[in-house]
Amino acid sequence: MTLPRPLAVAMGDPAGIGPETIAKAWQERQKLGLAPFFAVGTPEAFEQVWPGPVQIVSDPDAAAAAWHEALPVIRIDGGGEVRPGQPTLEGARNSLDSLELAVGLARSGVASALVTGPVSKAQLYAVGFTHPGQTEFVAERCGIAGEMVAMMLAGPTLRTVPVTTHIALKDVPAALSTELIVVKGRTVIRALRRLFGIERPRLAVAGLNPHAGEDGALGREEIDMVAPAVERLREEDAEVTGPHPPDTMFHGRARARYDAALCLYHDQALVPLKTLHFDEGVNITLGLPLVRTSPDHGTAFDIAGRDLANPSAMIAALRMAADCARRVAGG
Amino acid sequence: MTLPRPLAVAMGDPAGIGPETIAKAWQERQKLGLAPFFAVGTPEAFEQVWPGPVQIVSDPDAAAAAWHEALPVIRIDGGGEVRPGQPTLEGARNSLDSLELAVGLARSGVASALVTGPVSKAQLYAVGFTHPGQTEFVAERCGIAGEMVAMMLAGPTLRTVPVTTHIALKDVPAALSTELIVVKGRTVIRALRRLFGIERPRLAVAGLNPHAGEDGALGREEIDMVAPAVERLREEDAEVTGPHPPDTMFHGRARARYDAALCLYHDQALVPLKTLHFDEGVNITLGLPLVRTSPDHGTAFDIAGRDLANPSAMIAALRMAADCARRVAGG
Repeated sequence: MTLPRPLAVAMGDPAGIGPETIAKAWQERQKLGLAPFFAVGTPEAFEQVWPGPVQIVSDPDAAAAAWHEALPVIRIDGGGEVRPGQPTLEGARNSLDSLELAVGLARSGVASALVTGPVSKAQLYAVGFTHPGQTEFVAERCGIAGEMVAMMLAGPTLRTVPVTTHIALKDVPAALSTELIVVKGRTVIRALRRLFGIERPRLAVAGLNPHAGEDGALGREEIDMVAPAVERLREEDAEVTGPHPPDTMFHGRARARYDAALCLYHDQALVPLKTLHFDEGVNITLGLPLVRTSPDHGTAFDIAGRDLANPSAMIAALRMAADCARRVAGG
Repeated sequence: MTLPRPLAVAMGDPAGIGPETIAKAWQERQKLGLAPFFAVGTPEAFEQVWPGPVQIVSDPDAAAAAWHEALPVIRIDGGGEVRPGQPTLEGARNSLDSLELAVGLARSGVASALVTGPVSKAQLYAVGFTHPGQTEFVAERCGIAGEMVAMMLAGPTLRTVPVTTHIALKDVPAALSTELIVVKGRTVIRALRRLFGIERPRLAVAGLNPHAGEDGALGREEIDMVAPAVERLREEDAEVTGPHPPDTMFHGRARARYDAALCLYHDQALVPLKTLHFDEGVNITLGLPLVRTSPDHGTAFDIAGRDLANPSAMIAALRMAADCARRVAGG
């Protein structure tokens, strides 16, 4: 068995807290036993916020060699002048070029997995980015339809996956279908096996309505749509339960009964996850040929460059990427 | 200052876990320093599940005198044969009669507050109960319009109030209005002052959509409806903030910034509350002339009579009722 190759970390927006959290994670590499990684981006983003050693490297092998001495960075030219907390269009373009290269390195296998720092969607749209977010961009670069991938939010005691994501609440009921729940549920079950090493995954499917509709009195989606999806998902080699009343499925004893909760809308998945694990949530994209994780927070321009950024979520994203990559490689 | 009068505790469905949790709370009265209370219902419900002393009393004064020696019960005739876990129509009628008397005693002031045990809505409907739940029944008996009262769920580190309650998720956007949010918000602000002794309450109002609509990109309700309600609520003597992104308002540091969260739908309020405080959640009705609390769980017929019921939520409901009654009385 060979050692895992290093992880590729796209720095995110150079004016956000991505570079600081990446540098702080590198600093703790020995204490935490982190797997080797390298950053991709403009070196200035790191130098502006961190006094530690940065080494410009040309490729992942050179990064692995440099890892013990300095934070290895594969340089992406451009990016303009970096001022923490003050995003620019050059910076956004640089973050996009960084993402593109990091995806390519992970896709080709010379990097073991992809970790992405936080970007500003508004900035990306301003430079002509046409995808809703980094997830869809990565899926497209991997040749996978967006519908087939799923966004898992993972913390130490809970994993949730929303079936619908960034749409208005009023559009959720019409956007849901048995088919969509089944497609996302299958992606989750397979990823729990492949990425998390759970042989017979336990998936809890949430209802949409209060008390899961109370036998139709408070909404019929559970009867007409969710229960049939649960039935079909039982054809997988997995333990699939639900539809569960949303309010009683996330307390400690309930969480112990499943490996992931399939939720029907953004906040149904994100509210319990962030209530419990605000500082250590990891976003992991399921259904891709590569492993991709991301800290579950934004650019936090308001605190960038002030040494206030908490690297816990970045560290958790690095750990999870390394763990999943090892499992995928059969290690 | 006179001592507070005892609390009136309607036992709930005699075949549910209400009687057992009430009896267990009485047993712990000294250790926990509980304020005196008496139960209202059929004595058989207690005798079936608990070997401790029960004393039938005729009124709250007699109950206060008996309190140290036995669980005081004001008898409600009827109820048939009580078998824990096996609800009957006679039992449901008895729970309704118990509720009616307990409300009357609290309304008249001879009991200091009302605590209600869990009932089975299905059973109540079967005996001709026409209110959606106990809350609406109590409001009607107090001559208050249902819209003016609000249901608060309270745990040790979080209080939430849903603006809409038991309706299908798809009906939520149309059921909301600036007016309704303002009415419920005012009820909450005034109750935080009157019942919880918070002079200048801090109210956090949730958005409806992911990221609170992200400036209209993910829904316009925040702009058109919630923000104007927040503006109007600022006319109260209170600190009102929002609309907040729902997923980032319930973690520890966020919760420390407000006294109550005004949520727009059932699960937005109930998911974080029960995720954090499943075993100790209290339901308290705001906007009534009397104090009314209830443990935030159901009848749990499946475990009734097996000495498995956890009295924590009942104890929390008793404590909160006593604390609030003391504040209302100016003690």
